[in-house]
Amino acid sequence: MTYEELQSLDLEHIWHPCSQMKDYESFPPIIIERGEGVWLYDEQGKRYLDAVSSWWVNLFGHTNPRLSNALAEQAQKLEHVIFSNFTHKPAIYLAKKLVALTPEGLEKVFFADNGSSAIEVALKMSFQYRAQTGQPKKKRFLALTGAYHGETLGALSVGGVDLYNEVYAPLLLNVVRAQGPDCFRCPFEESPETCNASCTQYVEEQLKEHADTISAAIIEPLIQAAAGMKMYPPVYIKKLRALCDEYDVHFIADEVAVGFGRTGTLFACEQAGITPDFLCLSKGITGGYLPLSAVLTTNEVYNAFYDDYGTMKAFLHSHSYSGNPLAIRVAEEVLDIFEDEQVLVQLESKQKILKELAHEAFAHLPYVGEYRQTGFVGAIELVADKKTKAPFQSEERIGYQIYQRALEKGLLIRPLGNIIYFMPPYVISEDEMTWMVDTTKEVITQFFKERGK
Amino acid sequence: MTYEELQSLDLEHIWHPCSQMKDYESFPPIIIERGEGVWLYDEQGKRYLDAVSSWWVNLFGHTNPRLSNALAEQAQKLEHVIFSNFTHKPAIYLAKKLVALTPEGLEKVFFADNGSSAIEVALKMSFQYRAQTGQPKKKRFLALTGAYHGETLGALSVGGVDLYNEVYAPLLLNVVRAQGPDCFRCPFEESPETCNASCTQYVEEQLKEHADTISAAIIEPLIQAAAGMKMYPPVYIKKLRALCDEYDVHFIADEVAVGFGRTGTLFACEQAGITPDFLCLSKGITGGYLPLSAVLTTNEVYNAFYDDYGTMKAFLHSHSYSGNPLAIRVAEEVLDIFEDEQVLVQLESKQKILKELAHEAFAHLPYVGEYRQTGFVGAIELVADKKTKAPFQSEERIGYQIYQRALEKGLLIRPLGNIIYFMPPYVISEDEMTWMVDTTKEVITQFFKERGK
Repeated sequence: MTYEELQSLDLEHIWHPCSQMKDYESFPPIIIERGEGVWLYDEQGKRYLDAVSSWWVNLFGHTNPRLSNALAEQAQKLEHVIFSNFTHKPAIYLAKKLVALTPEGLEKVFFADNGSSAIEVALKMSFQYRAQTGQPKKKRFLALTGAYHGETLGALSVGGVDLYNEVYAPLLLNVVRAQGPDCFRCPFEESPETCNASCTQYVEEQLKEHADTISAAIIEPLIQAAAGMKMYPPVYIKKLRALCDEYDVHFIADEVAVGFGRTGTLFACEQAGITPDFLCLSKGITGGYLPLSAVLTTNEVYNAFYDDYGTMKAFLHSHSYSGNPLAIRVAEEVLDIFEDEQVLVQLESKQKILKELAHEAFAHLPYVGEYRQTGFVGAIELVADKKTKAPFQSEERIGYQIYQRALEKGLLIRPLGNIIYFMPPYVISEDEMTWMVDTTKEVITQFFKERGK
Repeated sequence: MTYEELQSLDLEHIWHPCSQMKDYESFPPIIIERGEGVWLYDEQGKRYLDAVSSWWVNLFGHTNPRLSNALAEQAQKLEHVIFSNFTHKPAIYLAKKLVALTPEGLEKVFFADNGSSAIEVALKMSFQYRAQTGQPKKKRFLALTGAYHGETLGALSVGGVDLYNEVYAPLLLNVVRAQGPDCFRCPFEESPETCNASCTQYVEEQLKEHADTISAAIIEPLIQAAAGMKMYPPVYIKKLRALCDEYDVHFIADEVAVGFGRTGTLFACEQAGITPDFLCLSKGITGGYLPLSAVLTTNEVYNAFYDDYGTMKAFLHSHSYSGNPLAIRVAEEVLDIFEDEQVLVQLESKQKILKELAHEAFAHLPYVGEYRQTGFVGAIELVADKKTKAPFQSEERIGYQIYQRALEKGLLIRPLGNIIYFMPPYVISEDEMTWMVDTTKEVITQFFKERGK
């Protein structure tokens, strides 16, 4: 079959995620044959630098030899076993490591399959905890504007991005919504240097009014990713933790996107020096290989479910593949790589290089509102007016057009609206970073030049 | 570390799914080292026949060489790639095969990670279809008592098993609930031979009253699995399809547990000769290796989302690992095994053998209400009184006690309340079936003998 025939066959049968399929008429799917390091190769031999780590999951490059070998070996030994009453060494070791590496006080690990499921587990655990500890009125959740926590109805409910939620409104939970941080257009006109997270007052206002009915507050620490890589400082998290304590509300940290080194520390919460009541992990947990998620929580929460069977206090949530040995063995190897190859140390210098390259390239461009970076996530916010920070209208699909042009040049930078971002695998070299930044600059410059005509 | 130390370490850090963790004090987790065929081997060398296919996922045995090799090879080539605007051959081929093998009229495949997510996709698609085709009032779902569709809040909402739902009631959707089929205690006193699914009238009553507000009806075709392997004949599905047509309601077939040969045909809907509007698949799709799910639907549904981007009609649902090449490559190999090894033909004779062995062993036992079987799922319903069919009280945990005793003998038959069931991998041999049935009989007989004392 020719490449075009394969593309037609794809479109005949596959409904792609997060896509208006009509777009594929003029922009048919790129058929990837193989991957290596930061590169994806299509069936025609053309290569693409995967600057978004394939939706923020890849850490150590495509077809990483250590991860592929660990997976193949595990498949010869034990591919899966029911995880109720049964267990296996990789799960025990991974749980032990996760508990050791995450903030102090998180003692128990509950496994699920994907980020959405992890969020649902945390929400359900928090809710059931309230029911079982004499606080049945606490049955709502507090979440931020600009939040994204997944796609299943519980996870979607706490999300605050209209693009994903609006059409489903009648199906969603009645969430207490507080205005989230917005450092680029700070309502308090603070700068990152002076910021004391005054904007947590929006959360405080809601807690003051509704805390008696709120079970948990959920946030994405340091970066509201799907909202357009909106970054905010650790002090916000620190203050939120204090507010949650004050108002007796659980703190759910959704580190699905930001965990495993993305923000420069292994987990984002570390930078605020706090322990959430629930920590949700996924994406990078398997280095971009397989769906797996984990929810870590405290013994205090665990103990509220621990009782004689007849009291019916158990947490009966399960997924068929909970504790899947294949995914878990890969996750274990991921943590070993972090240790053996001193990944966080290496990442520190790479972050600096990226920051310098990108500031140099983008800061002065006319349609760039700002270049911002947290850890190994860099974001270019394109604006219609640099002074007023007025955004482009979403109908213009500025980011989408730039994305298409970059793909022509072999660079994969799938945008979020008008935000172009870099979130490459940690194995990217300095040369590759340079090429990534230069190519992005070239495409943006060329695009606005032609648009101006 | 000793076996006991490993067990302690497990319990120190792992919160197991669907478990009252306090039960593990007296019944610590069994640590599995490896699997082969129908057998699981623990770290002490003791083996267990996996008669429940590790939560109904395994088809072709543990560490099946074809599946392990396919997985290892794919991991050398392409472990994952973002599935929006990108694709790969395994996905194209799997989608083509699924469309060819599933009931006529299902043309599009949407991939997700687990069964719960597949259900959420189907519910959201149906709901959004209504919003985009001028039927905004149709925003509720109809589901059956005894239904189980997963654990995320949308999937849990359509479930009808109190054990899983009750505590979360304030978080769940307001579902139209119709009494489901109950052939063992048939309210119409019909037998499988004479049955014309009179009990679909319960659904019809609800549709008559609420159809103008109902988007979709969801069922588990042929077997309500989590409810206790409640089996019912194809005529029920046929009549339900007709009712859905009459009342303009989508038909969602949840074949997560029953798909891929479990009921004797590749998909359960085949036996009713109908095409659902949405077909949800997972579990066996990867032969028990990895989490993956797929929702198949019609071009009519797909077309309601197909429009210019600006109309905002796209289905924006996604999971990071949507279209994961590793899981998909294994799924493709699963379908190849079905074809190459004539699995369904072999299964036909195995079903007969199991039926004969089990009827012989259990039908006459005093506390067995009935032995029932559909395809390769056999269920023993234990009752306190054989004549009145009065059930045991759940506090007695009859099934659980029998399960523990069977494990001592190396047989894994995790029960559903007082229902002991067989759902073994398809590769089980006649000798192994005989041993499985004999051991179960021995354990049940011994248990009731001691209990009687």
